[in-house]
Amino acid sequence: MKSRGEFGFIDHIKANFPAPEGIIGIGDDCAVMPAGEGELLFSTDLLMEGVHFLRSESSPEDVGWKAAAVNLSDIAAMGGIPVATFLSIALPKDAQGEWAERFIEGYTQISRTYDVPLLGGDTTSSLMKIAVNVGVLGRCPKGKRLMRSGAKVGETIYVTGPLGDSAGGLQAILKGIEKTENVTRLIERHKRPVPRIDAGKVLIESGKVGAMMDISDGMASDLRHIMKASEVGAVIALDRLPCSPELVCVCAEQGWDRYELATSGGEDFELLFTGPEGLENELDIMVYPIGKTVQGKDLIWTENGRILNSDYIGYKHF
Amino acid sequence: MKSRGEFGFIDHIKANFPAPEGIIGIGDDCAVMPAGEGELLFSTDLLMEGVHFLRSESSPEDVGWKAAAVNLSDIAAMGGIPVATFLSIALPKDAQGEWAERFIEGYTQISRTYDVPLLGGDTTSSLMKIAVNVGVLGRCPKGKRLMRSGAKVGETIYVTGPLGDSAGGLQAILKGIEKTENVTRLIERHKRPVPRIDAGKVLIESGKVGAMMDISDGMASDLRHIMKASEVGAVIALDRLPCSPELVCVCAEQGWDRYELATSGGEDFELLFTGPEGLENELDIMVYPIGKTVQGKDLIWTENGRILNSDYIGYKHF
Repeated sequence: MKSRGEFGFIDHIKANFPAPEGIIGIGDDCAVMPAGEGELLFSTDLLMEGVHFLRSESSPEDVGWKAAAVNLSDIAAMGGIPVATFLSIALPKDAQGEWAERFIEGYTQISRTYDVPLLGGDTTSSLMKIAVNVGVLGRCPKGKRLMRSGAKVGETIYVTGPLGDSAGGLQAILKGIEKTENVTRLIERHKRPVPRIDAGKVLIESGKVGAMMDISDGMASDLRHIMKASEVGAVIALDRLPCSPELVCVCAEQGWDRYELATSGGEDFELLFTGPEGLENELDIMVYPIGKTVQGKDLIWTENGRILNSDYIGYKHF
Repeated sequence: MKSRGEFGFIDHIKANFPAPEGIIGIGDDCAVMPAGEGELLFSTDLLMEGVHFLRSESSPEDVGWKAAAVNLSDIAAMGGIPVATFLSIALPKDAQGEWAERFIEGYTQISRTYDVPLLGGDTTSSLMKIAVNVGVLGRCPKGKRLMRSGAKVGETIYVTGPLGDSAGGLQAILKGIEKTENVTRLIERHKRPVPRIDAGKVLIESGKVGAMMDISDGMASDLRHIMKASEVGAVIALDRLPCSPELVCVCAEQGWDRYELATSGGEDFELLFTGPEGLENELDIMVYPIGKTVQGKDLIWTENGRILNSDYIGYKHF
């Protein structure tokens, strides 16, 4: 359970359930429990029709893919390897046939891509709207998982890939703009996000990462979770944020603010982490330095070396 | 994921996801995975407002209790011990305040009663109806878990407690009958079911159980799952089914069929298992012999030694 937008309610739950000794409970991307020679990771996400997806806009296959992807990303966010998923699905009458089968098709595609078996779940009926809950179990070597709380002052802040594509794709859908090749790529990034399990594995094995999480609510919002958990401030250089050529083009054509999409747009599912300077030259994956951790509590934005006034807050659920 | 009422859809999923070597996937009360010196168990259930509970009929505390109880019962059904739960909850605006807090109160009550920490989950908004998904992780000694498929011809069939109370309580609510002391007890059994973790532990340690599951859809329906998985037939003596004095009295007063409630009524959450004759005199818990496994595929009902014609099928979800 993550402390994202739903702060009051999660704090209420957390107060009732302090984590037992040796266990990491509510507050990071996954719960962490010792198990034999390693550690178990567990995360779960609930997707509601009308809130997280619209039947009119997303194909059942895309919903199936994404329901698994967001959970696999939580395992990647700790540097873990997914072991199994569990699927609960509530279906109103008009979704119990073709919609359900096509949903499973998309879920099967991503499960095969990342070689993760579906081992159980629950199916039931719903009065009106579809509800989908996915739980994922993962593992990582003992004591190695990468938490939000591991950042130190003076580290470099990195991301593993371009930001804002998913938000750009969503905006293109909502505004109904023409589906050029570039727009189609952004929509694809929104509908079929890629969990960065490969990057998580490289980063945990490097032994050099301070704090890590996946970008689901937006870079600015998610960075604030690392800052709070690690008790550090941060300076982010907007001009260093990696953006895809497709996003740059579409933003130029449509007059959209690329920085806003890259900082506040959710669901990129790239990894955000801290570590020593120069990692972009040391690892077998692409990583992009975007800023520094500093003393204090503030998140400071710069552009070409100038400090900016503007603020980017990220998506809130409630 | 259980093969209960939702047969077609679950079979479709199961065909896409055969369980890997050494792992038990879709089809029993829990998934089973090796982990160090023991085995991990996992189960999950999705409760939908309007299908599984009504806000007008169940207090938020009762919904919170039951959401955890049904999952803890799945761990008990394998003879396991619960380790942790994970809660996903989607709340429409009018349930985000008091309802949510009272729900957590009930969830906390049962979690403390069985000493099971809540380690994570997800909270989000919903357009109209509440959705609650609980996942539970448990453990048991390697190779000892009690499956549906372990019954052999010639075993005695047992239950761990009275049947039909929960269904009687539900019927009392739906028919709006006067809440006498007996009726109130039945309603309590419906709203606050008790997962038989204690009984599961005694039964796994006895080393004498063939097949086992928990009674959630109704004894007749659930027994058929054991029969199918174990490839046995069964003879059940209706006159041996344990019923509470409260149910006997209320059925007499209201003219209800006690046998129907005890065989077809769901959510008793007692354990149904097979084993050698005479276990009722050997164990530290009460168990009630109700029949025998036989060759064939049929479920045969008797009353005072006479074979009956009637059929009791149990609740189907779709």
